[in-house]
Amino acid sequence: MKLLIAVVQDKDSNRLSNSLIAEGFRATKLASTGGFLRSGNTTFLIGIEDNQIQHILDVIRANCKVRDQLVTPVSPVSGAADSYIPFPVEVQVGGAAVFVLPVERFEHF
Amino acid sequence: MKLLIAVVQDKDSNRLSNSLIAEGFRATKLASTGGFLRSGNTTFLIGIEDNQIQHILDVIRANCKVRDQLVTPVSPVSGAADSYIPFPVEVQVGGAAVFVLPVERFEHF
Amino acid sequence: MKLLIAVVQDKDSNRLSNSLIAEGFRATKLASTGGFLRSGNTTFLIGIEDNQIQHILDVIRANCKVRDQLVTPVSPVSGAADSYIPFPVEVQVGGAAVFVLPVERFEHF
Ligand code: NI
Ligand code: NI
Ligand code: NI
Repeated sequence: MKLLIAVVQDKDSNRLSNSLIAEGFRATKLASTGGFLRSGNTTFLIGIEDNQIQHILDVIRANCKVRDQLVTPVSPVSGAADSYIPFPVEVQVGGAAVFVLPVERFEHF
Repeated sequence: MKLLIAVVQDKDSNRLSNSLIAEGFRATKLASTGGFLRSGNTTFLIGIEDNQIQHILDVIRANCKVRDQLVTPVSPVSGAADSYIPFPVEVQVGGAAVFVLPVERFEHF
Repeated sequence: MKLLIAVVQDKDSNRLSNSLIAEGFRATKLASTGGFLRSGNTTFLIGIEDNQIQHILDVIRANCKVRDQLVTPVSPVSGAADSYIPFPVEVQVGGAAVFVLPVERFEHF
């Protein structure tokens, strides 16, 4: 058995949760900030059999990989709002950092 | 030394905390949700000497094991409240998932 | 690669965060309570190359080591406030507990 600790951007957290449940994996979620990813993320703890590691890594990558997204900025609160023409800009979203840790013993009471 | 990561239902969290303190163990607690247990749980981090593993697992089992409990449902908010007779139902509560991880080095500053 | 799990008193948490960023380390932070330290602490998760372990432990010790601090108690809310002369007392602050865990595999999506 292994313990996966996965830090996932909040944007992808719910989608990953749903995919993990659909695939029969059980994850514990902790609210976290900063670090490997831009702030606002979720740390998943997932106990997993050795032969399921690649499967779950595929699920995490499918839901969380870094990609570009078009975002339309909101208009400025002050200044010449009349002459402001918002247009979408590309920002990077998503991403996950996954640690696979050895487990010496697992107990379920 | 080992690091225990224990996910414990919120219902049992305070009782386990008190027992760990009474037994001289030190635990760090993190609020968590979902996963191994029904949502609303606490993740305990506990550094522990190898020869104390069985002792602490006994303490966790004693405080957190799954058991049935009688719960009386609240009366329905709408509908024929006059004819509603609440009676207790059995639900499963408690439970803990415990990972014992190897520690390569421990420092205390 | 290793995973560092460091439990740090809240008082030192921001300062450690800033030092880690300045040194080029990335940390994920989780709010935690109790345990190794007096309540109110932060748990840092930090992925780290083996040859950087001593460097990061030095950074943590420099920012978090236990030390005495003079604290002036606030005046009592009730009682003979006229005759109350506050004077500073020494209290222990700071401290960190750091676990270095082996990592079998690390993936970044
Ligand atoms: Ni699948
Ligand atoms: Ni005992
Ligand atoms: Ni340095």
